[in-house]
Amino acid sequence: MYGLIGKLKAVPGQRDKLISILLDGVRGMPGCLSYVVAQDPADPDAIWITEVWDKQESHKASLSLPSVQQAIARASPLIAGFGERFETRPVGGHGLG
Amino acid sequence: MYGLIGKLKAVPGQRDKLISILLDGVRGMPGCLSYVVAQDPADPDAIWITEVWDKQESHKASLSLPSVQQAIARASPLIAGFGERFETRPVGGHGLG
Repeated sequence: MYGLIGKLKAVPGQRDKLISILLDGVRGMPGCLSYVVAQDPADPDAIWITEVWDKQESHKASLSLPSVQQAIARASPLIAGFGERFETRPVGGHGLG
Repeated sequence: MYGLIGKLKAVPGQRDKLISILLDGVRGMPGCLSYVVAQDPADPDAIWITEVWDKQESHKASLSLPSVQQAIARASPLIAGFGERFETRPVGGHGLG
């Protein structure tokens, strides 16, 4: 499996809108076992995204999906910057699939 | 919802054993919507844990479960230290439940 943990910062006041674009755009991505979008309770503009994929290639391929490309186009103007980013190698747990 | 993203470091050489204790101990925790254990590809001793709970109280209550207390007791000698820790407020996605 392949995992990503990342933080992004919305343009001030645009976090909710950015979150709904993200949640909309990431439905039905092949190989995506888990995709969770979270608010950062300590920063009103920050969003945490945690992802689990069956393999890294599925994540890469998802970036070419029309639904994801549309979401990226809609989200870009609402993104002020990026924070932490960690790649992981998930090995188990629950809530996958 | 209530989320946690955290990193812990195993005693050198003990990561796999620590991971299997964790995976064993966290089954069937009430209110736990997702619990993913991952290796850090950049550090042979590091583990990432990402958790999603229905509410913070469920996470707190889980620490009193006999299965979790046993896992903590078995895991403790294998833990060398803790790294990053972020609380989050998950708002949606998939792979929850």
